[in-house]
Amino acid sequence: MIKVGIVGGTGYTGVELLRLLAGHPQVELRVITSRSEDGLAVAEMFPNLRGHVDLSFSAPDPQALAACDVVFFATPNGIAMTQVAELLAAGVKVIDLAADFRIKDIAVWEKWYGMKHACPELVEEAVYGLPEVNRAAIREARLVANPGCYPTAVTLGFLPLLEVGLIDTASLIADAKSGASGAGRGANAAMLLSEVDSSFKAYAAAGHRHLPEISEKLGLLAGGKVGLTFVPHLLPMIRGIHATLYGRLRGQAEDLQALYEQRYADEAFVDVLPAGAHPETRTVRGGNMCRIAVHRPQGADTVVVLSVIDNLVKGAAGQAVQNMNIMCGLDERAGLNMIAVMP
Amino acid sequence: MIKVGIVGGTGYTGVELLRLLAGHPQVELRVITSRSEDGLAVAEMFPNLRGHVDLSFSAPDPQALAACDVVFFATPNGIAMTQVAELLAAGVKVIDLAADFRIKDIAVWEKWYGMKHACPELVEEAVYGLPEVNRAAIREARLVANPGCYPTAVTLGFLPLLEVGLIDTASLIADAKSGASGAGRGANAAMLLSEVDSSFKAYAAAGHRHLPEISEKLGLLAGGKVGLTFVPHLLPMIRGIHATLYGRLRGQAEDLQALYEQRYADEAFVDVLPAGAHPETRTVRGGNMCRIAVHRPQGADTVVVLSVIDNLVKGAAGQAVQNMNIMCGLDERAGLNMIAVMP
Amino acid sequence: MIKVGIVGGTGYTGVELLRLLAGHPQVELRVITSRSEDGLAVAEMFPNLRGHVDLSFSAPDPQALAACDVVFFATPNGIAMTQVAELLAAGVKVIDLAADFRIKDIAVWEKWYGMKHACPELVEEAVYGLPEVNRAAIREARLVANPGCYPTAVTLGFLPLLEVGLIDTASLIADAKSGASGAGRGANAAMLLSEVDSSFKAYAAAGHRHLPEISEKLGLLAGGKVGLTFVPHLLPMIRGIHATLYGRLRGQAEDLQALYEQRYADEAFVDVLPAGAHPETRTVRGGNMCRIAVHRPQGADTVVVLSVIDNLVKGAAGQAVQNMNIMCGLDERAGLNMIAVMP
Amino acid sequence: MIKVGIVGGTGYTGVELLRLLAGHPQVELRVITSRSEDGLAVAEMFPNLRGHVDLSFSAPDPQALAACDVVFFATPNGIAMTQVAELLAAGVKVIDLAADFRIKDIAVWEKWYGMKHACPELVEEAVYGLPEVNRAAIREARLVANPGCYPTAVTLGFLPLLEVGLIDTASLIADAKSGASGAGRGANAAMLLSEVDSSFKAYAAAGHRHLPEISEKLGLLAGGKVGLTFVPHLLPMIRGIHATLYGRLRGQAEDLQALYEQRYADEAFVDVLPAGAHPETRTVRGGNMCRIAVHRPQGADTVVVLSVIDNLVKGAAGQAVQNMNIMCGLDERAGLNMIAVMP
Repeated sequence: MIKVGIVGGTGYTGVELLRLLAGHPQVELRVITSRSEDGLAVAEMFPNLRGHVDLSFSAPDPQALAACDVVFFATPNGIAMTQVAELLAAGVKVIDLAADFRIKDIAVWEKWYGMKHACPELVEEAVYGLPEVNRAAIREARLVANPGCYPTAVTLGFLPLLEVGLIDTASLIADAKSGASGAGRGANAAMLLSEVDSSFKAYAAAGHRHLPEISEKLGLLAGGKVGLTFVPHLLPMIRGIHATLYGRLRGQAEDLQALYEQRYADEAFVDVLPAGAHPETRTVRGGNMCRIAVHRPQGADTVVVLSVIDNLVKGAAGQAVQNMNIMCGLDERAGLNMIAVMP
Repeated sequence: MIKVGIVGGTGYTGVELLRLLAGHPQVELRVITSRSEDGLAVAEMFPNLRGHVDLSFSAPDPQALAACDVVFFATPNGIAMTQVAELLAAGVKVIDLAADFRIKDIAVWEKWYGMKHACPELVEEAVYGLPEVNRAAIREARLVANPGCYPTAVTLGFLPLLEVGLIDTASLIADAKSGASGAGRGANAAMLLSEVDSSFKAYAAAGHRHLPEISEKLGLLAGGKVGLTFVPHLLPMIRGIHATLYGRLRGQAEDLQALYEQRYADEAFVDVLPAGAHPETRTVRGGNMCRIAVHRPQGADTVVVLSVIDNLVKGAAGQAVQNMNIMCGLDERAGLNMIAVMP
Repeated sequence: MIKVGIVGGTGYTGVELLRLLAGHPQVELRVITSRSEDGLAVAEMFPNLRGHVDLSFSAPDPQALAACDVVFFATPNGIAMTQVAELLAAGVKVIDLAADFRIKDIAVWEKWYGMKHACPELVEEAVYGLPEVNRAAIREARLVANPGCYPTAVTLGFLPLLEVGLIDTASLIADAKSGASGAGRGANAAMLLSEVDSSFKAYAAAGHRHLPEISEKLGLLAGGKVGLTFVPHLLPMIRGIHATLYGRLRGQAEDLQALYEQRYADEAFVDVLPAGAHPETRTVRGGNMCRIAVHRPQGADTVVVLSVIDNLVKGAAGQAVQNMNIMCGLDERAGLNMIAVMP
Repeated sequence: MIKVGIVGGTGYTGVELLRLLAGHPQVELRVITSRSEDGLAVAEMFPNLRGHVDLSFSAPDPQALAACDVVFFATPNGIAMTQVAELLAAGVKVIDLAADFRIKDIAVWEKWYGMKHACPELVEEAVYGLPEVNRAAIREARLVANPGCYPTAVTLGFLPLLEVGLIDTASLIADAKSGASGAGRGANAAMLLSEVDSSFKAYAAAGHRHLPEISEKLGLLAGGKVGLTFVPHLLPMIRGIHATLYGRLRGQAEDLQALYEQRYADEAFVDVLPAGAHPETRTVRGGNMCRIAVHRPQGADTVVVLSVIDNLVKGAAGQAVQNMNIMCGLDERAGLNMIAVMP
């Protein structure tokens, strides 16, 4: 059994990690920390866990965490970078669900996150935990930076086109839509049901923190700098990301459907839909799947890729568990075989 | 492995049965029939099942069904009663998710369902599949009538009070609220998102088909006829039933909290919340749990019971699988250990 | 033109008052105060008002308010009671949308609101602003206590039965459901979309602040103390209250439909639906109407009344404007003739 | 008073027309036809209209319609084209809310709508009823083709850029999202709440009927053929369209904010938000406004325009009333001065 600890489990990513890990056949949940909720039974805060998780939140205790095989950070940005080194030194594998180790360019990171990086020396070592790109490196990693939710949906959508060099990388467009759980569980008037329900808007059109993360990763796939316009939108619902991606094809037409199907043929968590299909976010609700469809409307030279994930699963906790499975030599699908809840 | 067939699997109860059975470790899905969708891959209609269910719908074939150990009817009312006898004769265990065998009083059934009963001789034999009441009989049953969704939530809520005779049975009130999936997947203008979303209403206040079912079952618990006012309401959401139950206490006060906790102490799928709690439907979304809280506001003589289920799980497909487990001598929780998806 | 001021207009009641008053043909909006938003254009906070309201929030200024004909308090509980006396002394008519003057029994008020009443001497004078009950007194009032949202829906629903003495007043039940806007616009994790959407729950079953208000008002109609069980529930939507009311008929049957129709025949804002109907909250969305239907299920002795309002209009800002119209001798319907937005 | 008739008023466009026209100070509603609902009171189908509209549906009667000053067709596509000529001959002004007269290229129309055009001779005469483009022609028109909902949002968004020739017209992208009411009130399993709620998807990526309409109108503005990729999406809510538009700037940078503000300075129903803003669909809910913001993310050469309307108002019934006002020489804003309902 893998002994697992979670730092900061009171948010949506935390409860989702608990849901997945409680059902994982090879995991033993050992500790979940929360300074503010020390002593509270986890299932009191999240009643869906009653009967499944007996743990209580506890104040952070370095020794308890150091005794784990794997520790997940489900903390706000800027926390993991102050604690990871100590855990790695103790031989613990670490998966950070926040943004601290996602971006290799530290100056870029510091600009977008508005703080000084506390642990730049580990940024280079950290592996970006997108298994469909970095599986081999994840297998050897001590420290995995779990990708952001938007970056996961966008990168998996563009990936086959970029790897083969089929589209103009100077003018990529990602029109992305996310459910409200992406904004977290903190008290925030802007995310009240009465503000978000029955309405729709774009936000952060001028620049969202996931923009530099996506650009950097797409650049690695493209073998050079990319030009990306990324506009996130807020959906009046809880879970789900839908990325609608636009690229200009260059050169000769290809069989895009075959390209996608072949690229993802061996991937357990990327499902290429039949030609002409439109993925719905509900088909991945609660599951770790990314479903993708590729279109070329009117036979013109703009390719449209539709990519959906559950932002809390493949976009956060599920991908983190997938990374843990790879890092620990388990079946990559262990604990992640849930069927999406639909309707 | 239990060989399972499903008759009529194109509705919400059908897809939910598939979701649960596909993850059941001792079940082999053999056949799912649909006259109208013969040949269509199940996963094409329900993309959440892609990669989990390879079956296609097939035209009804008595031999294929007769070769199963258990057959579920997820058909409209009035279908199962014409086909069950033949299956039973072939040694198949049958679980009907429709209403054909729920009500023992055939005249009452015929009045509320507006048709002649095609198989009255099996009504007496059929066991009402509420495990918390009829577990022993279910274990021996050939034919189980799976309870309605409202009846499940209401009966489990009133049960401890009625068994002990604590409330006046002449004036029970059940104010029940259901998500829209209870109305099924058929084309129906009244259930369009644009009709149901962001609104709330009662319906069928004059009399709903679940009224005689609930009354009969509460009467059995109470040992006599009960007077019940049952008002269903439609919630602007997909899944979940919340029953708010009102009864007049008679005689001395009791420790209601202890009464409920003791009655359900050994039940895997009934969770009595701590005193003062209010169950939320989301805490059972996608799971087979019924969560209950009991209140006595202001210390007056009206007891208020709050009871929530997922109408498609404990109110339909999940309870059907629970019944199958019992009928087949399996662990009652097999395939039903999912944690509710929240948020 | 009536010169109008609003104290504390940054919440949902405030924006709704602005929407209604901006379209009122005999109102001139003079001042809207907010200590925290001093200087901010109202339409910047509430973009639906762009082009309709030019005002900016200003710091509270007693002189500016004293120059108004009518001042509305859209403040949290406990504010109006400290400022009303001064305004009344200046000859201003005051309508308090909070709870400060709703309950005549000051000890009861202080218990439920957890503070000492700052102005008990005005409580007796204040008129409870339910026009269907107190129109004559409102016409003469200097100070109107605008009713709570639940109390409005519940009182209008029970009123005809209580006035005529048709039901047992010892065991009234009000099962009430409200949209999330009733909880206000403050940052509150419990009201996030991700907490409230796609779920349903009761809350405050042990006792809600509107309970003593409703009990007192129903008692006045019944001519004596009533026994009321009041259970509020939270709906996954923004606007609307649906009260489902239960009472035991005493004595001979009456034509309940005729009773309701006659009682409300002259009321502009109470609409008794035809026999057998079920009011939907969407039919009053954005409008000042209360729609009511009365049922007697199965001919038994329990009467069921269904009553819907928009909690922000007839349950708050709309009723406040209705009260202003009466106090100022205007047509009671002035500025309130909007048709509900449906679908 | 303008005497008004409506042909086919049982859909969402119909009830919205009724809501707006019932509140219009210069309109007398004379007749509303529906073959299937002949004799039914309009307010029985749409209870929000109780007390505001006394009319009943009546079977189509050419004489009653010919006696009107203006007739609106709120019918399915293909109906108006068979009846308009007769009404025009009788001197009636006609506004068609369906697609029959929107596209000048009849071959294109017949291809996308799958039927032969019954009245090609009037297509040329018909004026496309987008007042911000064609006000002068609308003023003189006998027959107005009311624009589609998506075309309204997209065209108003691109208009200033195209008129001035600022963007590359070969690669326009419109990523559009609509509430479910756009799909109408017909029974349709795909639009059930249980199918649409809490989910999001693109649809018709290969080609939607609004594509040729938009392309033709943008082409007129651009002075030549445009290349447009148009991907519509379905939002889990009732009302609202949000178009996110992408264009490549050519040549020198301009002050885009000033360009938009100046272009729409005199338009009553187009509101250009301040720089940096993001319009929300709720800010136009129930109102006739189009709100627009223009962004140039990261200073790159891709311009992003955000454009929102209420699909049933500015996208259908409201724009139709606006057109009627212009055609009849009334104040363009008459009956359209409602403030959006928010929250």
